[in-house]
Amino acid sequence: MIRFLLIDCPDEPGLVYRITEILYRHGLNVLRNGEFVEREDSHFFMRTEFEGDFEQEALLRDLRAALPASARIRLRDDRPRRIVVLATKEHHCLSELLVRHFFGQLQADILAVISNHNNLRELTERLNVPYHHISAEGISREAHEASVLQQIAHYEPEFVVLARYMRILSPEFVANFPERLINIHHSFLPAFIGASPYAQAYARGVKSIGATAHFVTDQLDQGPIIAQSVIPTDHTQNAHDMAQAGRDVEKLTLARALTLVFREQVAVHRNKTIVFE
Amino acid sequence: MIRFLLIDCPDEPGLVYRITEILYRHGLNVLRNGEFVEREDSHFFMRTEFEGDFEQEALLRDLRAALPASARIRLRDDRPRRIVVLATKEHHCLSELLVRHFFGQLQADILAVISNHNNLRELTERLNVPYHHISAEGISREAHEASVLQQIAHYEPEFVVLARYMRILSPEFVANFPERLINIHHSFLPAFIGASPYAQAYARGVKSIGATAHFVTDQLDQGPIIAQSVIPTDHTQNAHDMAQAGRDVEKLTLARALTLVFREQVAVHRNKTIVFE
Amino acid sequence: MIRFLLIDCPDEPGLVYRITEILYRHGLNVLRNGEFVEREDSHFFMRTEFEGDFEQEALLRDLRAALPASARIRLRDDRPRRIVVLATKEHHCLSELLVRHFFGQLQADILAVISNHNNLRELTERLNVPYHHISAEGISREAHEASVLQQIAHYEPEFVVLARYMRILSPEFVANFPERLINIHHSFLPAFIGASPYAQAYARGVKSIGATAHFVTDQLDQGPIIAQSVIPTDHTQNAHDMAQAGRDVEKLTLARALTLVFREQVAVHRNKTIVFE
Amino acid sequence: MIRFLLIDCPDEPGLVYRITEILYRHGLNVLRNGEFVEREDSHFFMRTEFEGDFEQEALLRDLRAALPASARIRLRDDRPRRIVVLATKEHHCLSELLVRHFFGQLQADILAVISNHNNLRELTERLNVPYHHISAEGISREAHEASVLQQIAHYEPEFVVLARYMRILSPEFVANFPERLINIHHSFLPAFIGASPYAQAYARGVKSIGATAHFVTDQLDQGPIIAQSVIPTDHTQNAHDMAQAGRDVEKLTLARALTLVFREQVAVHRNKTIVFE
Repeated sequence: MIRFLLIDCPDEPGLVYRITEILYRHGLNVLRNGEFVEREDSHFFMRTEFEGDFEQEALLRDLRAALPASARIRLRDDRPRRIVVLATKEHHCLSELLVRHFFGQLQADILAVISNHNNLRELTERLNVPYHHISAEGISREAHEASVLQQIAHYEPEFVVLARYMRILSPEFVANFPERLINIHHSFLPAFIGASPYAQAYARGVKSIGATAHFVTDQLDQGPIIAQSVIPTDHTQNAHDMAQAGRDVEKLTLARALTLVFREQVAVHRNKTIVFE
Repeated sequence: MIRFLLIDCPDEPGLVYRITEILYRHGLNVLRNGEFVEREDSHFFMRTEFEGDFEQEALLRDLRAALPASARIRLRDDRPRRIVVLATKEHHCLSELLVRHFFGQLQADILAVISNHNNLRELTERLNVPYHHISAEGISREAHEASVLQQIAHYEPEFVVLARYMRILSPEFVANFPERLINIHHSFLPAFIGASPYAQAYARGVKSIGATAHFVTDQLDQGPIIAQSVIPTDHTQNAHDMAQAGRDVEKLTLARALTLVFREQVAVHRNKTIVFE
Repeated sequence: MIRFLLIDCPDEPGLVYRITEILYRHGLNVLRNGEFVEREDSHFFMRTEFEGDFEQEALLRDLRAALPASARIRLRDDRPRRIVVLATKEHHCLSELLVRHFFGQLQADILAVISNHNNLRELTERLNVPYHHISAEGISREAHEASVLQQIAHYEPEFVVLARYMRILSPEFVANFPERLINIHHSFLPAFIGASPYAQAYARGVKSIGATAHFVTDQLDQGPIIAQSVIPTDHTQNAHDMAQAGRDVEKLTLARALTLVFREQVAVHRNKTIVFE
Repeated sequence: MIRFLLIDCPDEPGLVYRITEILYRHGLNVLRNGEFVEREDSHFFMRTEFEGDFEQEALLRDLRAALPASARIRLRDDRPRRIVVLATKEHHCLSELLVRHFFGQLQADILAVISNHNNLRELTERLNVPYHHISAEGISREAHEASVLQQIAHYEPEFVVLARYMRILSPEFVANFPERLINIHHSFLPAFIGASPYAQAYARGVKSIGATAHFVTDQLDQGPIIAQSVIPTDHTQNAHDMAQAGRDVEKLTLARALTLVFREQVAVHRNKTIVFE
């Protein structure tokens, strides 16, 4: 089994040496290693993939002893993550995740899909995933979010993925999932923040459209960016055509971001991400 | 000699038929033809490349007679355009244009370079182009712009190109060059409007940076977009690194936009462009 | 209903004029029009999208009368094409088509899936498409192809799509589907013709991998190319990693090629394609 | 001053630990570090950027003592490399290098340009670089190569760069510059090996064209690939148009490859490169 070790802490001399010495002492076989120092505030990041038998508690204890007290240490194996997916009516991002999941290629178990509409139920259930329709009609945002939260809580997921979930989430909702709530925004952020980015893109006459996968924070569309992609567009495409063309880049950008996060390739630092590719 | 014919007018039935009938009647050999109808406001665009001997006045008269009164008709040959380039201190966009010009590959004659600094003089003059240093130090923006305008006027250019010219131009200045003033902005507009887009991009932690060539209007960074490109960036690049990496995409995006404009492949319609590729 | 008109014939003066005059006379509303002349052998291509009521036989008769005798005229509406998909064991291209089909976004009806393996049956049938397992074990290639052909014939498809079908087809098989058999090859053709392109790419140490959608002819991997895409790779990816990374570009390249073909945007001329975008 | 340390050797446990321990002991400040193990033959690669005062001989001695005897150790500072550029008639790759050099942005000193034609002399000399015209007319390949070699030897360059040098070099010539001779090939290798790749690409009807920067070995166009890029093309471009469009991707791919090599980001292993980005 492959393990992923992700460490970040204030930089100081000898960190790589101390960490790799510990891995060596525990008899571990390093497959890949990467380090990065954010010079702006002198912060150290290191990601290691390794194999081998080891005692987890002893390893973590040794690492903690060797590192600054404020160090964050994440040690994970490569078993699938437990996730819940929220969607609305558009199928393409959800379909991409469901099909990968169906064939065991998502690095995650989709425990359930929750939607405020019902049109994605058929595909979801045909692909063996529970579907919960929680309508937002006629109830307050608070009440709706409470129902969604309750349903999510039932599954105890590690991550919640917004696969074109079109409702704005309250800061209270978001606060439940620090660095665990991932969204795909259908524009090249920070261009076209907010609603209807394709309509905005059409109105502005841009020559490319894009997609941005990011962690959700209480600032709408302002959280740390994990992955971005763009594709060309031109004058022949109206907002509807752009939305169609954008589907492919959205679904692949989301899938790529999830793979990065699930394999512990993404460290969040202030409002940015360090991505080890 | 190849001719470029660019027509736009309100759409109505039979326009292509009427126009191509006239070209046929004048014995012209159509090399390439493209039409597009903007459905939102029912506006027709057509671009034709053709060869052949013809009487220009007679052709234009026949076209005007066959088209709605508000039609815009542009008929140009493929001789180099007359341009003046404005720059500041960064050389990469200017260098790209000067080298292409030196080898006759720009589809334009660079009549002169005007800069508010003097460090680009050496390259410019070595490549046989007059260089005018008009410092902005110690004088008002109005006075500086008046001097620049006077110098430009001396050359009677068809187009003025801002090759990383870092001063904001007044609406009065811009008004002299409707659809004739082209800028390269060092971001993927409308992301990062205004000053220091790379610093903004770094602060936001984006995963791609870009460049946008556009016509300049009196709305800062809001004019019709001609061409856009992006390249990936990552957490290892600070604002300075991004600026370096962005140079290549800036210079190629500007060069490509100029080729499109100079070959009459770009029609401006309201605040957008129709680009015939 | 939108109609697609695709014409090609030897070039001669006045073709656009004559064709658009006929469309105008029949009262049709042209939405988009494109022409291209292949200069090498002076061949004319034109594609038109139009709306309006018309008598199909009369229109075709008028077009035939106005065009050279060797002209090819294709007139189609935008109803879904009838297709059969052949696959082997890899799911990603088939899944992409099945999901688009499930949500009515493929511009085609998938009448059936035929495979020489059985592992894709479950997904196919869950998404409401008949699945035929025709094993190639223990029988000759001729016998296997005869069974496949018979099964295809039952559905009378307009096109047959090879969605990562890993068996080499005989010229006799291919001859049944001129310009109607479309394959996705998992390399940037003509690099890595033949088997195991990712293993070849790894051995060569390339920095990008790609996918090519093409019409199949009796020359293996040599038919007219419809669409191509590449993605970066690097030294960290072995042949298996490349194959995984290549899935996304394969499935999107195939889907894009099918859309182009099904909307009559692709003319085949000798061993190349003219693609109207 | 920044130092680049590039190490490769057969893999064994504890290499990162041993190397970083030495760097730590010598009081060096690691700015960036990357390791990679080629699993196929269990070979280890490590690249480190560091700052600090140190005794070079002592550091190298300690590293050699800690590493397997077959280890290759390259330690370089970030001063410009000494290079000679060979060109023929096409200017775009040479111009790109000359302009970057003129403004101190190449990470190299261009000591001289050698060409078998004379049309690039003017630009080269205007940009302050010596130009040697060594005609190949009327003399044997051996004699021509001998003259070129002699001229190169005069400058004692670290690297020789082929900036669209159109003559095939003999294995004897190449043998003088192991891992020090870099070429830009105007296709996406291994597609279109040999002469006139754009003519080959046009004949094949590809939808993308590309460029490949590689080390030259005695196998024509078969050496280790450093960088590759592609751009889209279409049916409207003939071989001449493709050659024009390809210029931009060629010059940027070459410039990027040189930066990678000059900053010691490229390790050659058998016929591949390990590129630390």
